[in-house]
Formats: sequence, C-alpha cells, structure tokens
Amino acid sequence: MIEVDGNRLRHIADGVIATDSATSVPVRLKVLHDALAALLALHRPDEAAIEETYVNRNGTATLKLGYARGVALLAPALAGVPVTEYAAKSVKLAVVGTGGAAKPQVQMMVRRLLPGAAIRQADAADALAVAICHAHHRASRMAWSRAAGRAAGSRSAV
Amino acid sequence: MIEVDGNRLRHIADGVIATDSATSVPVRLKVLHDALAALLALHRPDEAAIEETYVNRNGTATLKLGYARGVALLAPALAGVPVTEYAAKSVKLAVVGTGGAAKPQVQMMVRRLLPGAAIRQADAADALAVAICHAHHRASRMAWSRAAGRAAGSRSAV
Repeated sequence: MIEVDGNRLRHIADGVIATDSATSVPVRLKVLHDALAALLALHRPDEAAIEETYVNRNGTATLKLGYARGVALLAPALAGVPVTEYAAKSVKLAVVGTGGAAKPQVQMMVRRLLPGAAIRQADAADALAVAICHAHHRASRMAWSRAAGRAAGSRSAV
Repeated sequence: MIEVDGNRLRHIADGVIATDSATSVPVRLKVLHDALAALLALHRPDEAAIEETYVNRNGTATLKLGYARGVALLAPALAGVPVTEYAAKSVKLAVVGTGGAAKPQVQMMVRRLLPGAAIRQADAADALAVAICHAHHRASRMAWSRAAGRAAGSRSAV
C-alpha cells in the first residue's frame, strides 16, 4: 500500500497473507478474502494493481493459483476499487528501468524508492514494486489526460 | 439446490450464473460472488458440493477457471457452509450407477430423481447431479455414524 502525490511516493503498509496449509481450501480462501477485505476497509485505496501470473505446465498448481488470484481480484471489486494488471516485465521496467532486471535488483530499488520503510519480506517488496509500477503508469495517464484537456481530478476514476 | 429427508430428495432450485464477457474479470467475479452469496442467504443450505474440475493443458484457461472456482469455493466458506468436492466419476456413479455414464444419461437420471422440476439447462442438471451425489454420500456417512453409535443429529456438522 503506497500513497501517490504527484511524483512523490510514500510507503503506507506491506505484508504477506499466509494461510494454514493444514486447513481446507475454502477456509484458506476465506482467510485470504477476510484479510484483503479488512485491509481495503482500513486503508480505503483508490486503486489496486496486481502482477500477471506466471502460468506453468502443472495444471493442478495453476488451478489452485487461480483460486487465490480469483479471490485477490474479487476483494477490490467488492470494495468498488478498480484493479489493473501488469506483466512482470512492465513492473521491472517501471522500477529498475529494464524489463530483464533480477528480483534482488527490483527489491533494492523498491527500498530506495520508499525510504524509511522496513520491508522485511521479499514477496511484500514484490507487491510494492507492482504498486510503484501502477503509480508510474497512472502518472503518465494523468499527464496525458491533462494534455488532452480532460479533467484529471478524481483519482478513483483513472 | 435440493432438500434431503432420509432417502427422499426434493428439488428446490437450479440455474446458471452467467456473467457479461464484455466486462472486466474482477467485475465478473463480483457478479458471480454476489449471485452465490444471495442464493446462500436465501436458501440457507446446510452443506455445499462442487465437482472437481477438469484441468487441461491450456494454462491460461485453467487459471481463469481457477478464478471462478475460487470464488465458488469462497462463497460457502463466507456463509459458514462446508463444501465437499466430488470427482466427475463419483457423480456419474452415484446418479447413474456407472462411473462411465454419458452426460445425457446423467441429465436424464437427474430429471427422474427430481420429478416435477423443470430443469431447463444442461449445466443446471449437472449441478443437481453433484448435489444428488453428495446426498448419497451423506446418507452413507450418517448411517455409518449411527452404526458407530455417534450422534447424527446435526445436518450441518456432517
């Protein structure tokens, strides 16, 4: 979760939602949903962004990833928050400047772009990278809107 | 949706939740979730059952199927309704008597087992077949519970 004010980025929160692998799939999806719904209610973000998922050849693993991702897409929709998807390449390009950057590079740049935040988990840094990518694309879109003479006042309408 | 009273089955409702393919994935998942949540609130079932999904080689299709299935598993979990999964073979075995039955046979047997119900959609008949399968397995489990001298009073605890 980051705050965007023009070109300035501010770290708000980050983390990883873990579920107990010993519990049933529906219960694990409920834990994920409840955590996301609570975060959306607490921080009331205007927009959400998610990284496009890598699909591998293991159909069962892909299906299970789909469950979690479906719930992750549903939570903002239920809160009326628009979601944008970004390819991993776009995230790397926005944060590091090259689409082929390695994970540690991305995580280092995230920490540099959001100084003062103690980002402890690599997955949380990856999520913040997606948020930063969205902020960059959003800024471009808003500049474009202004250039086109359209109003760019409402953040949630972007 | 069926009602189970001992060996008697009664048709309560059936249908297909369709979403507009022109809208975004998060919005389509919200439509699915809201429809399931409304049905769960209206009928207040004790239990839910879902057919195990066929996973094919197309990773992107499997992922998207996962989104919908994740939401379908989440809705009963949010309503406190336990979900049981059944392989397509088990559903055919329970409804027709053979795991290798063809789809039209299954649908014909569903209509025979739930007389008086005007089941118009093939997908709805398939869903009722899963419910009938669950009712059979449930009856066996309850008989087993009774034989083992355990209480089998609470339907929702099965």
